[in-house]
Amino acid sequence: MNKKLIENLYQAWNQDDPKKFDDLISEWYTIFSDPGDGWEGKTLDKDTYKTRVQFSRKAFPDLKFSVSQLIEEGDRVAVVWSAEGTQLGDLPGIPATKKKLTFAGQTVYQIKNGKVSGHWQTMDRLGLFMQTRS
Amino acid sequence: MNKKLIENLYQAWNQDDPKKFDDLISEWYTIFSDPGDGWEGKTLDKDTYKTRVQFSRKAFPDLKFSVSQLIEEGDRVAVVWSAEGTQLGDLPGIPATKKKLTFAGQTVYQIKNGKVSGHWQTMDRLGLFMQTRS
Repeated sequence: MNKKLIENLYQAWNQDDPKKFDDLISEWYTIFSDPGDGWEGKTLDKDTYKTRVQFSRKAFPDLKFSVSQLIEEGDRVAVVWSAEGTQLGDLPGIPATKKKLTFAGQTVYQIKNGKVSGHWQTMDRLGLFMQTRS
Repeated sequence: MNKKLIENLYQAWNQDDPKKFDDLISEWYTIFSDPGDGWEGKTLDKDTYKTRVQFSRKAFPDLKFSVSQLIEEGDRVAVVWSAEGTQLGDLPGIPATKKKLTFAGQTVYQIKNGKVSGHWQTMDRLGLFMQTRS
């Protein structure tokens, strides 16, 4: 049940407990494509993956993802999601605004041996950026 | 074969022949979510859908989509795509730059009775915008 695995992954992102990821992601996790992500193109070990999660949670300590669609075929699960959070920390080029921001994205996950092993992602970074300026 | 239908849809977008859409899209086509799209939230008849295609092709007369992944389940097909085109026309807030731009996106399509009836989309608008400024 790859869908259930991905639901658990989003639950882990919504909590502040890095250990939750240990059973969800592969030993090595590849960010195949993710424009604007500092780790794009890299393959991460688990500690680096957790560092990446903490990077997002430092910018948005109350970051919360909501999944609206899951589409599964073979070793892939596509997700339509939205996220909201209060930007209490800095983002690249954007000092903390203390604003509640919302943004939309879609992600395709690769699953190997019951663990999430990588993703391709696009999110509406311009929409997010414009909210910080409004 | 919903995947084949979606492949045909991208082929139609890559050509400049509005009639190609007649057999591909439903009488009514809903843009459920598509940040930055002027028709977001609207349900379009075929003529309005074609107007929307022409709007994109006016900005990028040589617009070409490349599909890298198709994930199908039930009445949905998720697509990972990239696009490139020379911006010979204006975009909202961005006068024609004459630059060749590339951008990435993901889209989930809804299929009803063998026709595409709507989509949810996110694309990297910030990446596109930054290329117009560089």
